[in-house]
Amino acid sequence: MDIKMIRAAARRQEGHVRRTPLLNSTFVDEIAGRRVWLKAEALQHTGSFKFRGGWSAISALSLEAKKAGVIAFSSGNHAQGVALAAQMHGTSAVIVMPSNAPKLKVDNTRSLGAEVILYDRDTEDRQEIGQRLSEARGLTLIKPYDEPEVIAGQGTCGLEIAEQVSEVGITAADVLVCCGGGGLTSGIALALEADAPEMRVRPVEPVDFDAVTRSLAKGIPQTNSRLGGSICDALLPPTPGSLTFPIMKRLCGAGIVMSDEDCLRAMSVAFTRFKIVLEPGGAIALAAALYHGDHLSGKDVICIASGGNVDADMVSQALADYPCT
Amino acid sequence: MDIKMIRAAARRQEGHVRRTPLLNSTFVDEIAGRRVWLKAEALQHTGSFKFRGGWSAISALSLEAKKAGVIAFSSGNHAQGVALAAQMHGTSAVIVMPSNAPKLKVDNTRSLGAEVILYDRDTEDRQEIGQRLSEARGLTLIKPYDEPEVIAGQGTCGLEIAEQVSEVGITAADVLVCCGGGGLTSGIALALEADAPEMRVRPVEPVDFDAVTRSLAKGIPQTNSRLGGSICDALLPPTPGSLTFPIMKRLCGAGIVMSDEDCLRAMSVAFTRFKIVLEPGGAIALAAALYHGDHLSGKDVICIASGGNVDADMVSQALADYPCT
Repeated sequence: MDIKMIRAAARRQEGHVRRTPLLNSTFVDEIAGRRVWLKAEALQHTGSFKFRGGWSAISALSLEAKKAGVIAFSSGNHAQGVALAAQMHGTSAVIVMPSNAPKLKVDNTRSLGAEVILYDRDTEDRQEIGQRLSEARGLTLIKPYDEPEVIAGQGTCGLEIAEQVSEVGITAADVLVCCGGGGLTSGIALALEADAPEMRVRPVEPVDFDAVTRSLAKGIPQTNSRLGGSICDALLPPTPGSLTFPIMKRLCGAGIVMSDEDCLRAMSVAFTRFKIVLEPGGAIALAAALYHGDHLSGKDVICIASGGNVDADMVSQALADYPCT
Repeated sequence: MDIKMIRAAARRQEGHVRRTPLLNSTFVDEIAGRRVWLKAEALQHTGSFKFRGGWSAISALSLEAKKAGVIAFSSGNHAQGVALAAQMHGTSAVIVMPSNAPKLKVDNTRSLGAEVILYDRDTEDRQEIGQRLSEARGLTLIKPYDEPEVIAGQGTCGLEIAEQVSEVGITAADVLVCCGGGGLTSGIALALEADAPEMRVRPVEPVDFDAVTRSLAKGIPQTNSRLGGSICDALLPPTPGSLTFPIMKRLCGAGIVMSDEDCLRAMSVAFTRFKIVLEPGGAIALAAALYHGDHLSGKDVICIASGGNVDADMVSQALADYPCT
């Protein structure tokens, strides 16, 4: 797992994966007390960065494996990323999703041509289901984060950030990354180590699902005690990945933990000031920049806005409860 | 008013005006029955394309005029565009706005440091107020569309479209533009005439505020019978501009007229499928692509999503009334 794999993934993505904009707003700078730069991955195909990893993994398969089809387990964004990448490669995808995933994510995954198999997040093991079906049907399993080509694909977001911060004259800043299993976080960290080494990646996690933050603090992998119960449905893995954790341990600064309420407030700010739609987990890095500035240093901060696949009701509620004026 | 002015405006905008992305979605293509490409100007600074023209006009002023300050009249987006451009140039702005403009637009304009003067849209003449204050205070009046440097500034959006359609291999398509007085429409038409001459610009207007569509059909300027009464608050000028109409007459295809309801439906689609927030007038071109495909030809259509400055309540209502699934 190295920078060469990320650069190779970027070449395979050319013309297929969107270069998302780096947005800023004087209104947001004022709330945060520093300049905030939002990497708008919600504008990526399928509404999240996950299409980067899905495309990377499928485009790296042998012709034979591509033809046989793929399988993935996912709370919803990896599902859509893999489903669209499979569809664009002319192959089939089976996706194992929790039965309580947001309706929009399940509907979209089906609409993108995938076969969806639902499981109970509290009582069943998605990894076990995925591996069993993979063997039974001869499908290649594309794990959501503990998969070299997936990490490489997410890392291309970091290559873009390195270019974009250079364009606006920033060399050193904290880079806040919405963190679940660590695929995006470790991919971006590897890319920035190579192309913008003074940037420091900081994972941001929901309260009670802070396994990465605790693992980084203790130096060895910790687990989350629950698998559900936060509105940040995309950020609830059991534990940091065995591939991603060593990378994060070597390259990342301390983790930051934010409440669900702060994510809802950040969703309202993103809507009003950046004109983009974010899901709770996609807004958590922005929330950290806005409401936990004392954990940061420097006059600039980069936030990944990782996804926007959220049911409309939740956004309307966030706008009503936390108006941004 | 020619392409050289647009190219000069683009050079002055470098590093200040955002190059907005051209978005697409297979879900949206399916609704429209052709490929839809959304030029996301809601992601421009101040949430609309108007910052392009504001920056262009102020950056073209003499040092002396810049120092004296500027004045503009606007329903809200030109207001914010001019206010931010003035602030970034270190000068002052007075903005004359209708008293019934969306609260967000008035608040933002004030927050950007401008002095806001409200007038009654139904009984007072904003042009007269603007010109009177301009003379009394020695301020340069920056009209919202009938102003060469403003048209040139908006035209830079067309230069970007020419580059972006070329990147995705499109040479000929209808380009649907949200149309009020015609500043954006005529600017884009001039830019595309030079850089992508097979593209055809089509203005899109709200029902009952279709002066441009009727003017193009008759060949001479027509007026709107009312000045208020559509939710497309950004698209309610009395008549096409005297500078913009001859350009539109020479270069544009027939206009398209859409209902307020179709704009709300398109706002819901933009939210769900593109993850961007659009105001009603900013969604009217997308509405035409989605719900009036029989007025279009070709397998691709480009839509300008011109702005996203809308009160949260209206978006929540659109999402509730017209769910996109």
